Amino acid sequence: MAEKQEDRKVTPRSEDFAGWYNDVVLRAELADYSPVRGCIVFRPDGFAIWEALRDELDRRIKATGARNAYFPLFIPQSFLAREAEHVAGFAPEVAVVTHGGGKELEEPLVVRPTSETIINHMFAQWIKSHRDLPLMVNQWCNVVRWEMRTRIFLRTAEFLWQEGHTAHSTRAEAQAETLRILELYRDFCEQFLALPLVTGRKSAAERFPGADETYTIESLMPDGRALQCGTSHFLGQNFARVFGIRFLDEQNQLQYPWQTSWGVSTRLLGAIIMTHGDDQGLRLPPTVAATQVVVVPIWRKAAEAEAVRAAARRAHDELRAAGIRVHLDERDGVTPGFKFNEWEMRGVPLRVEIGPRDVASGEAVLARRDLAGQAGKSKAALSALAEHVGRMLGEIQHGLYEQAAQAMRAAIHEFDDYGAFCQRLGGEGGGGMAYVYWCGDADCETKIREDTRATCRAIPLGQKTAPGKCIVCGRPAREQAYFATAY
Amino acid sequence: MAEKQEDRKVTPRSEDFAGWYNDVVLRAELADYSPVRGCIVFRPDGFAIWEALRDELDRRIKATGARNAYFPLFIPQSFLAREAEHVAGFAPEVAVVTHGGGKELEEPLVVRPTSETIINHMFAQWIKSHRDLPLMVNQWCNVVRWEMRTRIFLRTAEFLWQEGHTAHSTRAEAQAETLRILELYRDFCEQFLALPLVTGRKSAAERFPGADETYTIESLMPDGRALQCGTSHFLGQNFARVFGIRFLDEQNQLQYPWQTSWGVSTRLLGAIIMTHGDDQGLRLPPTVAATQVVVVPIWRKAAEAEAVRAAARRAHDELRAAGIRVHLDERDGVTPGFKFNEWEMRGVPLRVEIGPRDVASGEAVLARRDLAGQAGKSKAALSALAEHVGRMLGEIQHGLYEQAAQAMRAAIHEFDDYGAFCQRLGGEGGGGMAYVYWCGDADCETKIREDTRATCRAIPLGQKTAPGKCIVCGRPAREQAYFATAY
Repeated sequence: MAEKQEDRKVTPRSEDFAGWYNDVVLRAELADYSPVRGCIVFRPDGFAIWEALRDELDRRIKATGARNAYFPLFIPQSFLAREAEHVAGFAPEVAVVTHGGGKELEEPLVVRPTSETIINHMFAQWIKSHRDLPLMVNQWCNVVRWEMRTRIFLRTAEFLWQEGHTAHSTRAEAQAETLRILELYRDFCEQFLALPLVTGRKSAAERFPGADETYTIESLMPDGRALQCGTSHFLGQNFARVFGIRFLDEQNQLQYPWQTSWGVSTRLLGAIIMTHGDDQGLRLPPTVAATQVVVVPIWRKAAEAEAVRAAARRAHDELRAAGIRVHLDERDGVTPGFKFNEWEMRGVPLRVEIGPRDVASGEAVLARRDLAGQAGKSKAALSALAEHVGRMLGEIQHGLYEQAAQAMRAAIHEFDDYGAFCQRLGGEGGGGMAYVYWCGDADCETKIREDTRATCRAIPLGQKTAPGKCIVCGRPAREQAYFATAY
Repeated sequence: MAEKQEDRKVTPRSEDFAGWYNDVVLRAELADYSPVRGCIVFRPDGFAIWEALRDELDRRIKATGARNAYFPLFIPQSFLAREAEHVAGFAPEVAVVTHGGGKELEEPLVVRPTSETIINHMFAQWIKSHRDLPLMVNQWCNVVRWEMRTRIFLRTAEFLWQEGHTAHSTRAEAQAETLRILELYRDFCEQFLALPLVTGRKSAAERFPGADETYTIESLMPDGRALQCGTSHFLGQNFARVFGIRFLDEQNQLQYPWQTSWGVSTRLLGAIIMTHGDDQGLRLPPTVAATQVVVVPIWRKAAEAEAVRAAARRAHDELRAAGIRVHLDERDGVTPGFKFNEWEMRGVPLRVEIGPRDVASGEAVLARRDLAGQAGKSKAALSALAEHVGRMLGEIQHGLYEQAAQAMRAAIHEFDDYGAFCQRLGGEGGGGMAYVYWCGDADCETKIREDTRATCRAIPLGQKTAPGKCIVCGRPAREQAYFATAY
């Protein structure tokens, strides 16, 4: 296997972004296509990213007081139909089970595209009194939405996600929960995944089907297209009414609770890959890298081998004892240069090289994946390697975020001329993000989409800017919004 | 809600074991029925047991070198058909997706009942050389097997599990892996879940469809029925041949790899509940209890309240700081006795009571859930509470195992008379386990099943006993086997 990799070059990112993305995902063995249309296989190196991400997010979600639960994969078709907007949004893209145990079912079952309906059916049985509120559950599971065109991690028929569902006594409490999760997602993506974001609420056209308000975290990929990374929905009392969830308040009056739902998915893996990768392959934030550090022993003469290998093993053991996820690449028969390329392709954040001269001087060469060439190279004393490496992993995490944030800032433009706006956003590929005044009228939003394919990605909260003129119609506009072509 | 619980008594375990089981599961809020036939809802207190179990087992599986991955939920119907025994075993109980995205599918998709077929299809693309072996992956996922009769956790259409799949260069290596996992499961169930077991290989009639050999861990429930808790299969080259998995060995010859698969499921929750529970409700091993310790402040006069509550809070904080999962029950309006009953019902392993006299003497009363009445009561100095409680949780874990092991040993009987054997195993309900000589002939096995409903649960490995006579036909028998009526 290994030898073949040198033959297959990765498509340069600047030439063909989509081709580069697929090459990197397949070459780094993160995922593979499956024989089932729209479904992918998460290979161990890809799934390890998801596990690291999931474990950290799970800790953060539990810290809010939500608890994990698990609801059925199947939903009676009639359930989906109860909320009018919800069914309109999801019915066209569901997979339907019609037969079970060799017989045709009396009522077809839908494979969950999201679980509001079945969860709220259960909530109706569990919520009786204000003492049962707030009820906050989260579920990690697979969901299915039939997709015509598959992009690994970004758009697949089956994907993995978490979906939180909460019910509260008051509107204010549910609204606060919606925004608390939005902030939780933002902090998690920025700090843990090194993904820069803009945040805000969605326009009515882009809302979750059945929600009163949807809030979003959006990132901008290097090809100039926006990627929705997570959403938090204020559901009002819509689902409570159709599923008959009512509770006795402190005055002994029956009330409908106020609800939220929120989720992020394996799509975040796509965001990490696209945001940080380069022509050499993946660049993984140390927080999610299955291997954070690779140690490569280097020697030419057989006489040098023993001392070098022993030093490399000691370095490996010391790093592992310090809780760093480290791999020692002792393979014979492949050159150090081949190893360097392979680990760069796989996105390992830091390489530790140990050769005969390093052993003699008691040092190792460190090569950072986030800084190319000499800029990323430095030396560290073998006697204090773990401490040095630990600190450097923190710097790499920060460095990847700063590089991405700078690139994103450079690709966000403000416009007051609709022609210039259309020229930028309507070109081939993504045109970055435009931050423009919009009057809020759906007709103007539609015109933008028809003229440029761009959609409203987010309307930032708490804007303090002076009113301006709508980029489309010129009428007064109180708010600015981000528009972009989206994945 | 709380007040109602006093009215609803749990069915006594001795009167109606199945009724007791359902009462406990529902009253302790571990799970609920769902509107989808055969599918259940895991409520937070039930799912927390699964999470604790899963996290520990995941660590142990990863320590063997297997890595987690994720394969599609859907399997093309034709895949299932490729291995003749496999399709015969699973086709009758699959759920079938016939429509997706509003259209009828060209080929129906089966919702995975197990993933040998799709995983081996992928293995065929990943395995080319002996250097790609061993390939060891594990997957935590949901699976669906259409069931007519549902028993919460024990038999449900959808359940959660892990399934490991490995491929090796040699038969010996694959056989060793099969047995290594059997031993891993045994140690995990006994040490972590406090479940006593017998282990061994299955008879040909009870093998996994498509396996050359199936090994099993079996426990015996208090109602005298056996529960299969996990299986490890030696698949030989059966799936490799039908999915065309071949590798170049060190002599550059094409070979089929040797394979294994193995799994445990949410059924283990049922084993924990049935094995340890009593007429007061659940009794959870501290390892899997979402709440390991509940602290209950007790006072009568308002003047006492402040000091008692402060001491209870300090105890709570100290236990939490020591890494113990502790809950402080400060509710007003319910009596201490009500609280005791509720936490006993929910299976919390240890209760810490703190009253005015305890505050004065600097002590707390501890009440162990594994020992009823005064036998489980003791005092501990508040100044060294965490250390004392930590040690006692270990004793409770051990105590639950010992009680269960003793009960299981008492329910295993040896027979040399077929009439006595049938009388014991063929009665109403489960008759415990019989450990008897069996010649290995399928006709004798069938006769036992027809006469008693009991099946062969396990044939222990490495038996050193002298040959005997088959319990059914009287012909020479080299081995003894466990027979029991099974869940």
